[in-house]
Amino acid sequence: MYLSQMNKEQLVCFKNETQALYDDFKAQGLCLNMARGNPCKEQLELSVDMLNVFDDGDFVSENGIDVRNYGLLDGIPEAKRLFSDMIGVDTEEVIIFGNSSLNAMYWSVQTAYNKGILGSKPWSMYDKVKFLCPVPGYDRHFKVTEFFGIEMINIPMTPTGPDMDMIEKLVSEDETIKGIWCVPQYSNPDGISYSDETVKRFANLHPAAKDFRIFWDNAYCIHHLTDNPSYILNILDEAKKSGNEDMVYIFGSTSKVTFPGAGVAVMGASKKNVEELKKYLGLSIIGYDKMNQLRHVKFFGTYENMCEHMKKHKDIVAPKFKLVCDTLEKEIAPLGIGSWTNPEGGYFVSFNALNGCAKRIVQLCAEAGVTLTGAGATFPYGIDPDDRNIRLAPTYPSLEDLAKAAELFVICVKLVSAEKILSEMK
Amino acid sequence: MYLSQMNKEQLVCFKNETQALYDDFKAQGLCLNMARGNPCKEQLELSVDMLNVFDDGDFVSENGIDVRNYGLLDGIPEAKRLFSDMIGVDTEEVIIFGNSSLNAMYWSVQTAYNKGILGSKPWSMYDKVKFLCPVPGYDRHFKVTEFFGIEMINIPMTPTGPDMDMIEKLVSEDETIKGIWCVPQYSNPDGISYSDETVKRFANLHPAAKDFRIFWDNAYCIHHLTDNPSYILNILDEAKKSGNEDMVYIFGSTSKVTFPGAGVAVMGASKKNVEELKKYLGLSIIGYDKMNQLRHVKFFGTYENMCEHMKKHKDIVAPKFKLVCDTLEKEIAPLGIGSWTNPEGGYFVSFNALNGCAKRIVQLCAEAGVTLTGAGATFPYGIDPDDRNIRLAPTYPSLEDLAKAAELFVICVKLVSAEKILSEMK
Repeated sequence: MYLSQMNKEQLVCFKNETQALYDDFKAQGLCLNMARGNPCKEQLELSVDMLNVFDDGDFVSENGIDVRNYGLLDGIPEAKRLFSDMIGVDTEEVIIFGNSSLNAMYWSVQTAYNKGILGSKPWSMYDKVKFLCPVPGYDRHFKVTEFFGIEMINIPMTPTGPDMDMIEKLVSEDETIKGIWCVPQYSNPDGISYSDETVKRFANLHPAAKDFRIFWDNAYCIHHLTDNPSYILNILDEAKKSGNEDMVYIFGSTSKVTFPGAGVAVMGASKKNVEELKKYLGLSIIGYDKMNQLRHVKFFGTYENMCEHMKKHKDIVAPKFKLVCDTLEKEIAPLGIGSWTNPEGGYFVSFNALNGCAKRIVQLCAEAGVTLTGAGATFPYGIDPDDRNIRLAPTYPSLEDLAKAAELFVICVKLVSAEKILSEMK
Repeated sequence: MYLSQMNKEQLVCFKNETQALYDDFKAQGLCLNMARGNPCKEQLELSVDMLNVFDDGDFVSENGIDVRNYGLLDGIPEAKRLFSDMIGVDTEEVIIFGNSSLNAMYWSVQTAYNKGILGSKPWSMYDKVKFLCPVPGYDRHFKVTEFFGIEMINIPMTPTGPDMDMIEKLVSEDETIKGIWCVPQYSNPDGISYSDETVKRFANLHPAAKDFRIFWDNAYCIHHLTDNPSYILNILDEAKKSGNEDMVYIFGSTSKVTFPGAGVAVMGASKKNVEELKKYLGLSIIGYDKMNQLRHVKFFGTYENMCEHMKKHKDIVAPKFKLVCDTLEKEIAPLGIGSWTNPEGGYFVSFNALNGCAKRIVQLCAEAGVTLTGAGATFPYGIDPDDRNIRLAPTYPSLEDLAKAAELFVICVKLVSAEKILSEMK
């Protein structure tokens, strides 16, 4: 029976039973974490052999550069080849960064902010510039734009991607809208992959601002949870068809392929963009860690091997996603007190509680020893207007711990939902 | 006999003889590089065992964090300890960055520019802000401030450091002077170490701008060329004595200790500064490469071992510096056509030709196959007002190659000097 269909007596009874279960949990003194999309130890072990690739004593890249020394601002050629395959661009359309794609995004926003893009006025010279933010989205994206005082406009997500009608209208009308944050494949946190139509509409945008950029954070481009994954359309290819190739900045990394603390991040863009970006990048660094680039290349060899490697990740994490979704299906679905995604890739399950319940659910979980991503974090300025979205990150805990955490989570959802419905009855 | 004492006939004869030697060199088709302070291959080999430190399978930092995973924005505790010793600060006064101290400097300027420092107005909100630049200095420093449109004011170097009278006067009078670039030990390119008095005067500056910062790039803090090196005074300790500790940003790296492409960079500052900087840093990155931090810690163990390790570098590069200085002493000193430093550490020999000769010398060297740092590069905006300073970087070439390069260099100095003196006779 849906909770909303219960009478007051039934609800009070339900609430009391749930409260007892919650109190039992609290007494256990758990300390579990489902807050961030961290790989678990077993996943980290998958890439440990990468540390032995220099046993051959060969430190020279294919263009004859000793990777231990200075130089090669934009990366060694073999890394450019490997990672341009990963994000779907040409080797002349890629820059290899350090261990953090977030840092590459921050830097590319900063450069536009302080210097402009391809001759345009620096964003800092406007009274106000704005970014479109599909919501729910990635908190760290929003923090970058917030740092630079960029106003953020929420764009609702749909099952095929962000609301393109709204985006097309806004960017065509407002010259101060300078960018949009996108996680096009297995979006953070919803796990939604943009449909072909969505990608095409992005590629064919006609923004009023010439320096409008799509920040296409393809963080989960090869992070599938199924055996027959589907890939999103290549945005740069599509954009080229309409002469729009300068409008796209693509990002990716191996943070969840090899090591989150020591992976390789990349940025893809049109040759024209890359040329200008390299000019600015060269003022901020002599070059990123080329040993780590070569380490990755020697370990994987080819993009195909990287994709094979990702299947090992899938084998470890897919059961964790299943556990969470099964628990929700069993415990929440019959009560009608929440909805969630069943992602085919990425790192999160996005849960929508009844309106006004997310903060309290996260708080109750925390008080019983399970840390979740802060409620609101998936929205600009940390404000979820409906206070309903909670991002669950199932990869890090063991299956056993995860079972406990999921059990507690559904208890908290039930308890808070009952409280809410009861309070509305009065 | 000094070239300036020769009569026209002698000079023409000298010039023709030198021209013939130059033409011979040119015919050899050399391809050598003394442009950048790159370690040579033998130096890179010194740290190769660092790549095996994870053979023990232990990836956990002393506070229990798996360094392969996300987290620890400011570095693992054991790296903070090792590198705070290196730059002379407490472990609470240090942030561990990626592989590039230049990147840390760029970022700290950028943060001040866009956000201000400890509550002050962002530098971007002034019509104009200025930096003091001891000259000759490091070209990449100047490029950073130039990127942000910061006006640069040349400060002459003396044998004990920059002209402190001038600095004290300027910073006390002008609230728009926001910083100064310093390489206090073995300055780039002069190899000058700041005297105790100079450091004390820096520590006791009374700038009109509360957000004035000394960018103390201690790049060569343990990079000695002698057996009994002297160390400069600890600026943060001195600044604390006068309550000035917020005025100093210290930078260092292992780029020339382990690998230039894959070292560890650090920043030291007062706790108050570090607290604010970490807040901003966390928006731009989740954390730098902790595996590389632990790699360094496991390899060196202690700061003392790091200093021992530097003696091996000294054994390799000191003979190269000697060769260059000996060649200058033998070939240039008797002619009175140049002066240079005899550095006790660092990476460069700074040569001052007769005024107006540097560009032409660098050009002639290039045409005969030896690349030098561009003339002017050691000054803001690439403009050496006297066109006389040339930075020589002796570490990268083999002794044999270096001998040839040095020989060509003195030929070019002789030729251009003779041309100049002759032209002035007419």
